[in-house]
Amino acid sequence: MDYVYGPGRNHLFVPGPVNIPEPVIRAMNRNNEDYRSPAVPALTKTLLEDVKKIFKTTTGTPFIIPTTGTGAWESALTNTLSPGDRIVSFLIGQFSLLWIDQQQRLGFNVDVVESDWGQGANLDVLASKLAADRYHSIKAICIVHNETATGVTNDLAAVRKLLDNYNHPALFLVDGVSSICALDFRMDEWGVDVALTGSQKALSLPTGMGFVCASPKALEAAKSARSVRVFFDWNDYLKFYKLGTYWPYTPSIQLLYGLRAALDLIFEEGLDNVIARHARLGKATRLAVEAWGLKNCTQKEEWYSDTVTAVLVPQYIDSTEVVKRGWKRYNLSLGLGLNKVAGKVFRIGHLGNLNELQLLGCLAGVEMVLRDVGYPVKLGSGVAAAAAFLSNTTPLIPSRI
Amino acid sequence: MDYVYGPGRNHLFVPGPVNIPEPVIRAMNRNNEDYRSPAVPALTKTLLEDVKKIFKTTTGTPFIIPTTGTGAWESALTNTLSPGDRIVSFLIGQFSLLWIDQQQRLGFNVDVVESDWGQGANLDVLASKLAADRYHSIKAICIVHNETATGVTNDLAAVRKLLDNYNHPALFLVDGVSSICALDFRMDEWGVDVALTGSQKALSLPTGMGFVCASPKALEAAKSARSVRVFFDWNDYLKFYKLGTYWPYTPSIQLLYGLRAALDLIFEEGLDNVIARHARLGKATRLAVEAWGLKNCTQKEEWYSDTVTAVLVPQYIDSTEVVKRGWKRYNLSLGLGLNKVAGKVFRIGHLGNLNELQLLGCLAGVEMVLRDVGYPVKLGSGVAAAAAFLSNTTPLIPSRI
Amino acid sequence: MDYVYGPGRNHLFVPGPVNIPEPVIRAMNRNNEDYRSPAVPALTKTLLEDVKKIFKTTTGTPFIIPTTGTGAWESALTNTLSPGDRIVSFLIGQFSLLWIDQQQRLGFNVDVVESDWGQGANLDVLASKLAADRYHSIKAICIVHNETATGVTNDLAAVRKLLDNYNHPALFLVDGVSSICALDFRMDEWGVDVALTGSQKALSLPTGMGFVCASPKALEAAKSARSVRVFFDWNDYLKFYKLGTYWPYTPSIQLLYGLRAALDLIFEEGLDNVIARHARLGKATRLAVEAWGLKNCTQKEEWYSDTVTAVLVPQYIDSTEVVKRGWKRYNLSLGLGLNKVAGKVFRIGHLGNLNELQLLGCLAGVEMVLRDVGYPVKLGSGVAAAAAFLSNTTPLIPSRI
Amino acid sequence: MDYVYGPGRNHLFVPGPVNIPEPVIRAMNRNNEDYRSPAVPALTKTLLEDVKKIFKTTTGTPFIIPTTGTGAWESALTNTLSPGDRIVSFLIGQFSLLWIDQQQRLGFNVDVVESDWGQGANLDVLASKLAADRYHSIKAICIVHNETATGVTNDLAAVRKLLDNYNHPALFLVDGVSSICALDFRMDEWGVDVALTGSQKALSLPTGMGFVCASPKALEAAKSARSVRVFFDWNDYLKFYKLGTYWPYTPSIQLLYGLRAALDLIFEEGLDNVIARHARLGKATRLAVEAWGLKNCTQKEEWYSDTVTAVLVPQYIDSTEVVKRGWKRYNLSLGLGLNKVAGKVFRIGHLGNLNELQLLGCLAGVEMVLRDVGYPVKLGSGVAAAAAFLSNTTPLIPSRI
Repeated sequence: MDYVYGPGRNHLFVPGPVNIPEPVIRAMNRNNEDYRSPAVPALTKTLLEDVKKIFKTTTGTPFIIPTTGTGAWESALTNTLSPGDRIVSFLIGQFSLLWIDQQQRLGFNVDVVESDWGQGANLDVLASKLAADRYHSIKAICIVHNETATGVTNDLAAVRKLLDNYNHPALFLVDGVSSICALDFRMDEWGVDVALTGSQKALSLPTGMGFVCASPKALEAAKSARSVRVFFDWNDYLKFYKLGTYWPYTPSIQLLYGLRAALDLIFEEGLDNVIARHARLGKATRLAVEAWGLKNCTQKEEWYSDTVTAVLVPQYIDSTEVVKRGWKRYNLSLGLGLNKVAGKVFRIGHLGNLNELQLLGCLAGVEMVLRDVGYPVKLGSGVAAAAAFLSNTTPLIPSRI
Repeated sequence: MDYVYGPGRNHLFVPGPVNIPEPVIRAMNRNNEDYRSPAVPALTKTLLEDVKKIFKTTTGTPFIIPTTGTGAWESALTNTLSPGDRIVSFLIGQFSLLWIDQQQRLGFNVDVVESDWGQGANLDVLASKLAADRYHSIKAICIVHNETATGVTNDLAAVRKLLDNYNHPALFLVDGVSSICALDFRMDEWGVDVALTGSQKALSLPTGMGFVCASPKALEAAKSARSVRVFFDWNDYLKFYKLGTYWPYTPSIQLLYGLRAALDLIFEEGLDNVIARHARLGKATRLAVEAWGLKNCTQKEEWYSDTVTAVLVPQYIDSTEVVKRGWKRYNLSLGLGLNKVAGKVFRIGHLGNLNELQLLGCLAGVEMVLRDVGYPVKLGSGVAAAAAFLSNTTPLIPSRI
Repeated sequence: MDYVYGPGRNHLFVPGPVNIPEPVIRAMNRNNEDYRSPAVPALTKTLLEDVKKIFKTTTGTPFIIPTTGTGAWESALTNTLSPGDRIVSFLIGQFSLLWIDQQQRLGFNVDVVESDWGQGANLDVLASKLAADRYHSIKAICIVHNETATGVTNDLAAVRKLLDNYNHPALFLVDGVSSICALDFRMDEWGVDVALTGSQKALSLPTGMGFVCASPKALEAAKSARSVRVFFDWNDYLKFYKLGTYWPYTPSIQLLYGLRAALDLIFEEGLDNVIARHARLGKATRLAVEAWGLKNCTQKEEWYSDTVTAVLVPQYIDSTEVVKRGWKRYNLSLGLGLNKVAGKVFRIGHLGNLNELQLLGCLAGVEMVLRDVGYPVKLGSGVAAAAAFLSNTTPLIPSRI
Repeated sequence: MDYVYGPGRNHLFVPGPVNIPEPVIRAMNRNNEDYRSPAVPALTKTLLEDVKKIFKTTTGTPFIIPTTGTGAWESALTNTLSPGDRIVSFLIGQFSLLWIDQQQRLGFNVDVVESDWGQGANLDVLASKLAADRYHSIKAICIVHNETATGVTNDLAAVRKLLDNYNHPALFLVDGVSSICALDFRMDEWGVDVALTGSQKALSLPTGMGFVCASPKALEAAKSARSVRVFFDWNDYLKFYKLGTYWPYTPSIQLLYGLRAALDLIFEEGLDNVIARHARLGKATRLAVEAWGLKNCTQKEEWYSDTVTAVLVPQYIDSTEVVKRGWKRYNLSLGLGLNKVAGKVFRIGHLGNLNELQLLGCLAGVEMVLRDVGYPVKLGSGVAAAAAFLSNTTPLIPSRI
């Protein structure tokens, strides 16, 4: 059944789905259960409470939906907006592009603010639009916190500040798919109205759960939103929340227990330590890229992403070959360049349950692959640069001191 | 993490989620993988081919959607119909009710044909409606093959015959959630246009995959259907089918391998043998119910379901107590009565990867529970009746002869 | 890889290896670890402490040896005795026979006290021998607590009493393979000097751990015992106990974690409740046998075993056929008759992590099998008798009240 | 239950127990089975046949014993020799020392040939002894193929040549614990009489199986060997081999299926490719050590081990600190220095199911740890040296070409 067996572990460095820690795999290794027995609501209750913590919200209402990130997007939009509503949305890479495509197909009037791929959201344009929008025709701002295709992290606090400056009531909808639980994200502090992520990203679970968290303002908006929705309708969830049975339809028993284990690991490490670890691994990766003499697709430091690094290859190299070669020779899984940057970048995902030596093994592999495809890298150079940084910054594992 | 530990195995006899066989649990016990590597499309290709076999179709196009049965419903409807379309839908129990609710919320003009709970779809009414519909205002017939709430199986061949008799072009949409892979279902022969099921039912997997299979006529209808859809849009799948990468968004790696294992088991047993096994276990259950002196919620033999039996309790007993007691004392999970039959029936699910002695253990448990709640059952009576039948009909396990 | 697939669960009712509960399977689902890291000794320490509880000893020293019951026997004998030592040993079935064979091959002077298979140890003969042994030539009494081949439980308290009556210093060595953790066993109270069991029995683990517990007197004896031993030498363990690293050679990481989970389940249920559950299931099984009109191989009630029942079949039936048929038709695994009782008995193991409905499913299966092989059993009769008893005696599951 | 959680994977580089590949973990993720059903002998038969292949023997008889390497040693010795027999045994490190200790405690007359730790077996002394032994008082030569404590591989072909030169009939007993399935080992060609290994080494399984393979000459010797043995007695196995049931006592069902999976992976890769992979990783490790400016404990190239490298640290460093630090800071598990080389060496195990990037991650970690403990290593230097070699020698993964 493993069609393409190679000895040793697969080195999984795509920016999702990411490595699942062994305790989580174990927790999911189980038979089905009756989800209407008292056990499942009891478990669910703890999950909903704890999921709020990873969104850093105390006032939000979380929904755990059996879907993917794409479904989570749809849930965020259809529950808060009505067809024809004007929304401002930032196009900065493949995933923001796909979300905008969805927004358009769902019938919203999407005011697209485009940047070069490799740049962050153009907040100056947003400022102008907000300034001009005296009658509040803009119903929502939709922004991807971390664009997975280019490794660009947007400044959400700045968005909130603009909204506040202009005293603008637009909903603030955030795709946190490759950020939440890895990057600094503060739902309440930043006044985010809907934030969402997926299980296969920083939570380090299998695909299959979309997490959507709604602010009180978003819940209020849901009451009048006229977008058609059933499967993704928050109301069905809220009805079952009140009943204490929680699930309008059958959840995955395995993912519920897996989520419990994943959250336990995150809280044992400490969410802030998890975020610090991502910062450390992100920085180490960028130092390696620099040592290789290659450029980061991300054009400015302020947008550097600590969960994924898109590496530009020289024009004479096809980045697709880097990915293919890594997989074929070293059991290394890297991310392809997508759409506009296809062939131009390869991506190193460094999010989820990952540590220093895993990353250094990956970087050593990238070096060998670069050499394979004709780029004259000095073997060991990137590893050395990354290790120098990690050697100075990696803390002792608290449980082992 | 198992909040409610009891010694020994849980006896899982809800009509879904059902028992997962050990080889399938094993197959899913794995880390994530890059779904864009060549391995996953190679695997997916075999899955799509083999899924067609369980629908008994050679002309249909299957979609494996990361969702539940509710999402599969939505996919079937929104891809083939436009808001305002008239559809005929049969209300015979809780799940047909929920589907109708969805149909209405999605904006269709639902012509509901209601039966008493415990009866099948009223096909006489359908005949009248078809006869009267000279201008083909009816765009689709929506029917649940097996109503899980009451244990009623509808006669799909008869529906097809009516459509043919009246030469009616309405689409024929079938919820096969608790039938496909367990009951006799023939997509091509019966001219079903969209059929659907969920992974946690007869396929004996965790929840998380909705299977939707579309006939060429349904695919054609999808081209002009104006219902808004993105996550559930077949077109996104078809686009990736053409590319050979298959997935418009991230699938669950674990469920893909699990599905492979589940299908392997089904084909090793033989789909017809699987269906015969369900018939055998269904009949045995009904014989037990009869021996207990209780009534089947299903009012006529023609509607008897081989995947779930809803058992009516005497008025002086609350069927909810049966379920509670089973779980609290015997680690037995039975299905509750829902909505109109709440308190009146309990349900024994006998679908999925299950054998004779598992069922007899359950029946012995139900007897003890009935006694606990005050029904004067003769202990062993149901088991004896079921065993007498099973003893005459159970074949040797082919691999062990 | 499962050469002989049959649908549904295997009904495992051999008296070992027994069913492993899901939480234990989960706990063992892991990679290897460095057993010299601080984690493994920390874990081991808790295990050794807790293993003492299942032996009901506070003064004993436990050894967890990577071996089977046969190896545990060898460990018990070679560490406490010298070649030529006279030992009294009771031959009452296949497993006591095998132990005696080992005792003889290890060079001891075995004074065999034989009983009919189906009877317990002849303690009158023991009394005579002790009475006659004024000069204490008898160095040890070796007795199987529960003879797995015939379902006979010996009275260990009576043995202790005899030793005390005659003020005899012989070591008291007990095979508790199919008793400890299932039957009432009290190492300290009964003055047992060495007791042993195996992981695949009532502890409900895979095979691979032999548990040997030595009294202070046994440890003292070990100092002068001249039997050759290295792998099984307690001294190597004691040396590493002192060092705090615990393991003279590599343990199975998986079994250590599995044992931790298994003990946790036992203590959550309560050891006395575990024993009561075995008593309940044993009694229920015997009532079924009686209802079938069959005889228990165990000749007197005082010897009835609550972990295994050996059922005598009429002369015109070959009990081997019962076992074969159960496996071939109903995925039921029963125990064969061994040696003197081959073809005459089949065995139902009812030990380990098991509950009422699992047993009733098995009993229903045995009934159908008996009918298959030509015995005119009334279907349902045994189940009814067992259920009547269980219905009156089974407590609510405490965690679910 | 994981007392010492750290994020990401543990980097397991002790020379056993080693990393278990995911397909093997999966294969073992199962309930117990009746080992007397026809399934287990059918499986066992394939295992015994295939185990012979990893010993490179067609004439040998394999025994799969539920024990560790220490037990496998005991089985090899006690089945072929009698107390008082003279055996020549080479002391070159901790594991040969332990084996010699066992030999002495089992009552043999051990003629110890000692070398400095870091040197191989002194075959000149063997030659003298064989030359002098005209009356064949030497009954066996005992040699460790690969001394795990010092990373020294002995030349077995040379031993055979000496025996042949002197036409000496001594049995040739080989500890292949850290060699078989990783180093070039040829039982038949080299006339080895008993070879043995353990499951947790190059086979990449959990601990719990000792593999002992006996030549026809060894089986003949077993007939007259007077060492006391029961648990380890080959005769009990041979008796059950004849019966076709294979097991004198209960095997671990999980390990049997795990072994099947492990052998399948080895044969899919190709045993010779497995050995070549070990040679590649061994060489890469040594190049790294050299680049760090450190010395290999192994004193001459002819003895270099491709499964474990013992690295000498400068006198001012305590190698125990290297191991501790690796574990505490980087989740890296290295091997301690043992006995005479305690504090002087740390060990990198590079055996079992392992690939290039895993090793490079480890080497990067060792560099950081060396810096932590005060050794002025140039970060990246070892990785660069290893990568340069690996980049030139690593083949494409055949299944992915």
